[in-house]
Amino acid sequence: MTQRRLLVVGAHSADFVWRAAGVIARHTSAGGEARVIALSYGERGESGELWKEPGQTVENVKRIRHGEAEAAAEAVGASFTGLDLGDYPLRAGGEEIDRLADIMRDYAPHVVITHPDKDPFNPDHPVAHYVTQQARLMTAGAVVEAGFKTVPPSEFLVFEPHQPELCGFVPSVFVDITPVMDSKVKAMECMAAQNYLREYYAQRAEHRGNHARKVTGDKSIRQAEAFQRIIPNVVSGL
Amino acid sequence: MTQRRLLVVGAHSADFVWRAAGVIARHTSAGGEARVIALSYGERGESGELWKEPGQTVENVKRIRHGEAEAAAEAVGASFTGLDLGDYPLRAGGEEIDRLADIMRDYAPHVVITHPDKDPFNPDHPVAHYVTQQARLMTAGAVVEAGFKTVPPSEFLVFEPHQPELCGFVPSVFVDITPVMDSKVKAMECMAAQNYLREYYAQRAEHRGNHARKVTGDKSIRQAEAFQRIIPNVVSGL
Amino acid sequence: MTQRRLLVVGAHSADFVWRAAGVIARHTSAGGEARVIALSYGERGESGELWKEPGQTVENVKRIRHGEAEAAAEAVGASFTGLDLGDYPLRAGGEEIDRLADIMRDYAPHVVITHPDKDPFNPDHPVAHYVTQQARLMTAGAVVEAGFKTVPPSEFLVFEPHQPELCGFVPSVFVDITPVMDSKVKAMECMAAQNYLREYYAQRAEHRGNHARKVTGDKSIRQAEAFQRIIPNVVSGL
Amino acid sequence: MTQRRLLVVGAHSADFVWRAAGVIARHTSAGGEARVIALSYGERGESGELWKEPGQTVENVKRIRHGEAEAAAEAVGASFTGLDLGDYPLRAGGEEIDRLADIMRDYAPHVVITHPDKDPFNPDHPVAHYVTQQARLMTAGAVVEAGFKTVPPSEFLVFEPHQPELCGFVPSVFVDITPVMDSKVKAMECMAAQNYLREYYAQRAEHRGNHARKVTGDKSIRQAEAFQRIIPNVVSGL
Amino acid sequence: MTQRRLLVVGAHSADFVWRAAGVIARHTSAGGEARVIALSYGERGESGELWKEPGQTVENVKRIRHGEAEAAAEAVGASFTGLDLGDYPLRAGGEEIDRLADIMRDYAPHVVITHPDKDPFNPDHPVAHYVTQQARLMTAGAVVEAGFKTVPPSEFLVFEPHQPELCGFVPSVFVDITPVMDSKVKAMECMAAQNYLREYYAQRAEHRGNHARKVTGDKSIRQAEAFQRIIPNVVSGL
Amino acid sequence: MTQRRLLVVGAHSADFVWRAAGVIARHTSAGGEARVIALSYGERGESGELWKEPGQTVENVKRIRHGEAEAAAEAVGASFTGLDLGDYPLRAGGEEIDRLADIMRDYAPHVVITHPDKDPFNPDHPVAHYVTQQARLMTAGAVVEAGFKTVPPSEFLVFEPHQPELCGFVPSVFVDITPVMDSKVKAMECMAAQNYLREYYAQRAEHRGNHARKVTGDKSIRQAEAFQRIIPNVVSGL
Repeated sequence: MTQRRLLVVGAHSADFVWRAAGVIARHTSAGGEARVIALSYGERGESGELWKEPGQTVENVKRIRHGEAEAAAEAVGASFTGLDLGDYPLRAGGEEIDRLADIMRDYAPHVVITHPDKDPFNPDHPVAHYVTQQARLMTAGAVVEAGFKTVPPSEFLVFEPHQPELCGFVPSVFVDITPVMDSKVKAMECMAAQNYLREYYAQRAEHRGNHARKVTGDKSIRQAEAFQRIIPNVVSGL
Repeated sequence: MTQRRLLVVGAHSADFVWRAAGVIARHTSAGGEARVIALSYGERGESGELWKEPGQTVENVKRIRHGEAEAAAEAVGASFTGLDLGDYPLRAGGEEIDRLADIMRDYAPHVVITHPDKDPFNPDHPVAHYVTQQARLMTAGAVVEAGFKTVPPSEFLVFEPHQPELCGFVPSVFVDITPVMDSKVKAMECMAAQNYLREYYAQRAEHRGNHARKVTGDKSIRQAEAFQRIIPNVVSGL
Repeated sequence: MTQRRLLVVGAHSADFVWRAAGVIARHTSAGGEARVIALSYGERGESGELWKEPGQTVENVKRIRHGEAEAAAEAVGASFTGLDLGDYPLRAGGEEIDRLADIMRDYAPHVVITHPDKDPFNPDHPVAHYVTQQARLMTAGAVVEAGFKTVPPSEFLVFEPHQPELCGFVPSVFVDITPVMDSKVKAMECMAAQNYLREYYAQRAEHRGNHARKVTGDKSIRQAEAFQRIIPNVVSGL
Repeated sequence: MTQRRLLVVGAHSADFVWRAAGVIARHTSAGGEARVIALSYGERGESGELWKEPGQTVENVKRIRHGEAEAAAEAVGASFTGLDLGDYPLRAGGEEIDRLADIMRDYAPHVVITHPDKDPFNPDHPVAHYVTQQARLMTAGAVVEAGFKTVPPSEFLVFEPHQPELCGFVPSVFVDITPVMDSKVKAMECMAAQNYLREYYAQRAEHRGNHARKVTGDKSIRQAEAFQRIIPNVVSGL
Repeated sequence: MTQRRLLVVGAHSADFVWRAAGVIARHTSAGGEARVIALSYGERGESGELWKEPGQTVENVKRIRHGEAEAAAEAVGASFTGLDLGDYPLRAGGEEIDRLADIMRDYAPHVVITHPDKDPFNPDHPVAHYVTQQARLMTAGAVVEAGFKTVPPSEFLVFEPHQPELCGFVPSVFVDITPVMDSKVKAMECMAAQNYLREYYAQRAEHRGNHARKVTGDKSIRQAEAFQRIIPNVVSGL
Repeated sequence: MTQRRLLVVGAHSADFVWRAAGVIARHTSAGGEARVIALSYGERGESGELWKEPGQTVENVKRIRHGEAEAAAEAVGASFTGLDLGDYPLRAGGEEIDRLADIMRDYAPHVVITHPDKDPFNPDHPVAHYVTQQARLMTAGAVVEAGFKTVPPSEFLVFEPHQPELCGFVPSVFVDITPVMDSKVKAMECMAAQNYLREYYAQRAEHRGNHARKVTGDKSIRQAEAFQRIIPNVVSGL
């Protein structure tokens, strides 16, 4: 798995940490390369603690959020880019899709992970899915010769949302993150303001670990992350 | 992938050939072990050509069907067992489930493949799914200590039915069978009576190969088989 | 459409009246033949009014129900057969399937209509679906030469249940019953004990007529019945 | 809500504790009556720890499991009955349905809760759903006068399975169990052998509490249980 | 239920009458407050009768539609606001979402009801769903401290569309409107031009009343309205 | 079926050939009229072969693609119009919907066929579905008198996508194209650059022919095309 490139796209700068820090750490510790892109900093919808400080400014909130995300990405061996498109609402169309498609053409990821296409609790997550899915299609073309630059199609998955059943999320693959759980914990600790979520997602990793044990009977698995493939993968054997 | 054990369970003795001969060949040519179990010989529902011969008997039909299936299994490196439970209708309950569960406890397969649970064109395929699924659960237990002998849970998939969309089949993994396509062709040639199906499924393998190329951009893929995972698999990275 | 044979299978003797009397009348008035089979008389679950009479017996209830159903069938030009398998619960398995399959092999229907496969309000309706579906498959075989007598596969539809959305019912075809609505009314009047349902289903036919008008823009449609195809039909043009 | 009767039916004697002890405690602490029925003791599939003791017998395992379940039920104010139908596999048909229907006719529950109808990890849970659903329908009849004793239809829900998304479970109602969480903890402590599950389901209650807070904005909610209604409920206002 | 605030958002000024006048009347007669918002007057798509008058103008059509809607709202105790965004097509995006979100922040509704997200017969209904859903999410924020004004999240439901099964509508709650049916009738009578719909929806209320009787066994229920919850509700007991 | 008007709308100029040339030929050879509209020429995403020529220009690519599509349409008796809206990405909104709606009001088609609403492999196909569906609704109005010109609602279907199961496509009707297969072959031959697809879709027509034979038992069917109805049709009998 060395040198495979993994791209994780989140609506807000902290999204990747809770749902995909483990798979990123697993990927980079195996010699792969990983990149995180945040469409926004979540500066309006998810930064309430920061806004409690008197004299707070939006630029300062973004600066702090950028720093946290960068540190968290570093903790799992990934680079971090914030596109700063704004949140609550994240509104993105053709131009933003083209911008992300350009990044994908340059990076040529083997695997792309983002939010599911539905979330009745968040206006920005489905937008992030749509932008990522469209950019991915614009990047790969129709897998025939195209009149523009393309790169090979990537595997495409979505990570686990906060209330999975209500987002139509059905896991199709568990990634065993036992060997890198400490890196995920470190990444989560970079997210200063959301103490409760650190505990929540540490427990969630244990639960998914339990599910992965049930699926395999392998008692060495302690923590896992769940993903859903949007497109079948191709293998040389089962 | 050496030494992994693959178990394919079909309702009738020819089912495995059209839908899973490629994955079996891929598995055995990589050093794995494969076993095919047919719940019936399809002696009533799928052996019409044989019944045209004057003086034909059910025992003779079964004998011929057994020979064909055994030869086809051999062509892809697998062993073949016919449980001879009868077809059109295949009626199977607790006793038959227990019998298959015993076989599974002995064989301890890493992967089990059977029919989807729905087929509006065939009364026996859903029964085969049910029997296999129940036997598999009885084999693995609750993955806690159980009051009976268990073996680790297997991966569980269904192969492609004849009219996929109407059986609720959605592919989640394509197996590239390009390197073993000649073995699949040989296995299909063992099925003397169903000329048309040989052509149909050879073309189908080409089509699934086209789909697998679209998914990966890998132009070396010529033929593939499609499967749907019923239970997530566990991996160490994406 | 002359000489096509229509078979309607209900769990209880009155089911066909509310949901399919119109399509039957339409069929027979166009020169087709129609047959109604009731798996039970609904003598326990749907005959409460009759049980209020002192000294009532199950045989008498069945006799009355038979008479009502026969009269209703006659009102729309169909024959009626009651298999008398018992209701609440209707329990039917291999033997009953074989019996119905024999009837189908004799009758060789072009179209078969029964209940949907799901009904959270009735224990007998899904059984009727299962029995009919299995018998139909046993009748047609695999559409290759089979080792037993077969007849050509029939079109297969389900009629509208009482609470459609909760039974997973999605209409795929509306039958305009405007020209035969009076026959359906007559058939409903044969069902002495269920006054309320006569009004309910007369209104329902108006509502489905409204839906059919919306679909076509054809203002001559007044009443309709809704059906869901379980298997695609084949046409020579759209 | 005083004097409403709640019935919880589990496949194995411990099932109700993890998934419904909270709603039971909430119900009884509000003055309602609650009854737990276990179709089996889970003596084969879920009692591995007990089987490790030398000389263990099935009767002793059942005795211990009965004691634990009775104590747990008592901790949340409910009575407990074990029908002892056997597990792994739980095989139940007409007779067992009739037996449960008789219990329902006597108890006349306002609310019935059981397992979802699908569980790819457990052979007994779907059987428990089927038996309960059929018994419930046989108890209520068609809500017209019937030829047998009926009681008014109950509300019908399923509790949360261990891997919700893979069982098709979608929560439709959260019950706030904050005021009775200590009773649920006590009930879970009665289940001596399954330490890990106590922690798992205590965390799960926290997570569902988090979801319920998100849904309402009510920060006083700490723990919750999730249920899915199978049949709509009727209210006098929203 | 006193003092709870109910908000009903329709694509056209008459939508709320047919599908939600009962629940509004039930709400206000219990002391609650209710507000109806129409995104458009339906002046193009649903006002054909008015356009038959010679010399008709769009402003006059809107004036008449406003008057009718206001009278109907008054009949069930609600206030009415028309946003006049245009119909056939209703095209609404960020600006309109923000406008509705501002209204929601001011009104702080406990319950929001609108159209389902799918309607193959109407281009405007899904737009109304989208606008309402987005505005609701922008109003509640992420239920953590946000960088903008929020109000607590509301319950969120959709009312019954004209062809429910084809709009993916599955009822999850019936509201008994028996005590206020005369108010709903009065509200419907304010809609001068659509005689047929008055009869249609009066019958529909009877049918849903029948369904609600079946669900509960409560024979005092005569009329009901059906709704589908989009997000689970939280209760203190079942 | 004489004089019925069929409209096929594709995202790119070649789409109609692979998926609907047969139904068009069947329609026109029965005396009906058919029109093909391509929203774009697929000049960027599907014309790679043409771009290999040195000095190629976009105008020349479009010219060649127009010629091919026109010849293919002629081969099956249809007229061809290219709206030239651009591809990869096809971006279309209110203005494009209005333009297509105007065409529909003029043409007043009895049947409209386009792409499914989902395609994880193509960014333009779902846009074509949306534009067509919206234009169709704007054309028909609410089937009450409207304040603008309307024509009667058309039947509405989608044709088979390249990877049907992953696009949510479930066939509801097969059209027997045996008598016009040679015309479809001729139309496919007009598409110079995509040799492989000619073979693929010729085989696909054979496979759908096999499915249609299974459904009917009619051995005279050799080739078929599959379609899914989005809206029920109305018939005078089954």
